[in-house]
Amino acid sequence: MCHRQNSKPCALQKGAQSLEFERNVFIKDSASIVGSKEGQGPLGSLFDMIGNDDMFGCQTWEEAESSLQKDAVYMALGKAKLKPSEMRYIFAGDLLGQSIATSYGILNYEIPFFGLYGACSTCGESLSLGSMAVCGGFADKVICVTSSHFASAEKEFRFPLEYGNQRPLSASWTVTGSGAFVLTGKRAENEKVRARITGITTGVIQDYGLKDSMNMGACMAPAACNVIYQNFMDFGRMPEDYDRIITGDLGSIGQTALLDLLRDKGFDISAQHMDCGIEIFDAEKQDTHAGGSGCGCAATVLSAFILKQIEEGIWKRVLFVPTGALLSKTSFNEGQTVPGIAHGVIIENVG
Amino acid sequence: MCHRQNSKPCALQKGAQSLEFERNVFIKDSASIVGSKEGQGPLGSLFDMIGNDDMFGCQTWEEAESSLQKDAVYMALGKAKLKPSEMRYIFAGDLLGQSIATSYGILNYEIPFFGLYGACSTCGESLSLGSMAVCGGFADKVICVTSSHFASAEKEFRFPLEYGNQRPLSASWTVTGSGAFVLTGKRAENEKVRARITGITTGVIQDYGLKDSMNMGACMAPAACNVIYQNFMDFGRMPEDYDRIITGDLGSIGQTALLDLLRDKGFDISAQHMDCGIEIFDAEKQDTHAGGSGCGCAATVLSAFILKQIEEGIWKRVLFVPTGALLSKTSFNEGQTVPGIAHGVIIENVG
Repeated sequence: MCHRQNSKPCALQKGAQSLEFERNVFIKDSASIVGSKEGQGPLGSLFDMIGNDDMFGCQTWEEAESSLQKDAVYMALGKAKLKPSEMRYIFAGDLLGQSIATSYGILNYEIPFFGLYGACSTCGESLSLGSMAVCGGFADKVICVTSSHFASAEKEFRFPLEYGNQRPLSASWTVTGSGAFVLTGKRAENEKVRARITGITTGVIQDYGLKDSMNMGACMAPAACNVIYQNFMDFGRMPEDYDRIITGDLGSIGQTALLDLLRDKGFDISAQHMDCGIEIFDAEKQDTHAGGSGCGCAATVLSAFILKQIEEGIWKRVLFVPTGALLSKTSFNEGQTVPGIAHGVIIENVG
Repeated sequence: MCHRQNSKPCALQKGAQSLEFERNVFIKDSASIVGSKEGQGPLGSLFDMIGNDDMFGCQTWEEAESSLQKDAVYMALGKAKLKPSEMRYIFAGDLLGQSIATSYGILNYEIPFFGLYGACSTCGESLSLGSMAVCGGFADKVICVTSSHFASAEKEFRFPLEYGNQRPLSASWTVTGSGAFVLTGKRAENEKVRARITGITTGVIQDYGLKDSMNMGACMAPAACNVIYQNFMDFGRMPEDYDRIITGDLGSIGQTALLDLLRDKGFDISAQHMDCGIEIFDAEKQDTHAGGSGCGCAATVLSAFILKQIEEGIWKRVLFVPTGALLSKTSFNEGQTVPGIAHGVIIENVG
């Protein structure tokens, strides 16, 4: 029994790591919620909701992070005028061990659930798999959500805030926030959508042997380099084919490393490169050192800022590359390296 | 620009939570590796490799678990006579915080990577997403791998082994093992494949308010019930349409709860039900209490035993339902409940 083996593919496999979608995948709508510090940053006026109190009315940091995901999904669905039951799947994750912020945050929506872990790259991973689900006709609509919280992440990866430890200048500041994205395969004539996802480049884990959990940018730069370089190869594109190439949370040190690594491979992306972690805070005034980081960093900046630029046609085509550092406190304490992963998503103006 | 919107779908969306694949998804080959205790159990003779020493030549339990994934992938590829570079994607996960067993286990294969977390249901989640990738034409071949390790899991979720704590009779025994599965969309005439995946039913998180991390079976039974009941609804099937309905690691207490929950919904699956956690150990002789558990439990039993039965035509159609308990030590210590998730995969004889 061999079904429809000859029908046209939903997507073209491009090169070693990429897909070009042959059917429409739209970002129907999205929402972002952030904490007070992010609200005071340069993008503050763009977020949909800003908490006054980073506990968000909860008893623990972890519950607060769950409430971020819950609120981001709620707002994204509200803006899209859709109900949870219209979402075929939810693709979601966070940074905490066993992704607990996600489990408790989304459980009341009762949407069939795929839990993801790609550290701070999870926003890109969720959009990649969500796009595949829509493009393949496995779902009419899906929702993708990721989050992070400064206090729960410090406790998970470094030290509880109560210890009052000093942070080196290479450290990043985990963003308190969550971004949710509704993807759909169809739109009615004149129906408003925010953007279209036209392809993805899926990362390969990169391990350059770095071990410093206080310098994640350097650990993740090789992973961003892998995805960006491979995107150019797979699609036969040059840096100028993108209005922006936007990494998730490399921060200032990771940015320098990325630009150097790509120059070694013959590409100069300094005119196109932007990093969500650098944009979300004013590092000098806000004392955030290397920049923002976390699953919530790329997700909130994408929802609030990048999609706005694409929607308004200021940028026509963006390569969005959230990056993740694959470590845990156990692997760090056992002296393991910090490998990196990145997930590239091509987002275009719908016109 | 609207591409090929009228071409046939790759899959049919069935009911609220299921897909029926309209293109072929074959399990080309698979492999399993287990620890010494699993090797001494009732299925011991069926596993591809049994370790003499549960450190598997490594310095830490976490590294040992990484080596399990590495070996399972290596063996599965070897049996399938395929190279890592022929795998378009790897879908992988484990139980440890930030899925570190996976990150370090698979990094040298350099395969584009989607990291998953569904607790002990991750084997089903990886096969679900892997099947979608193959069915949608996003990949010709993918590999799915999951693992668990008794010692790393006890340390992660309960107490380090060195504490010598007592375990209640409701506790399960985390399986030390890993199973890897190569999925492919095409086969040459007379090419041997192990089985075919014809559909999936994706779980919704179920939270019945239970809080006992030493009684995971009861926490996960509602999730298994959700998937099995919904599978019957979505496909219009009855228990007897399956030769076996096989949960991952409910153990003896969870099995009783599942049978009761389904009876309340009007279905008696007692003739078809089997549980990997009950099969892998002789609970009485091996002192494993409620049964085996972990990402490695369902994966190794699927590879070594279930696929063998399907391949030989003893079972024609199986509903495979790995189950996961969504907790972390942080959520447990903060008094949270233990929600469950399950992922159903329909596996059939190729004939």
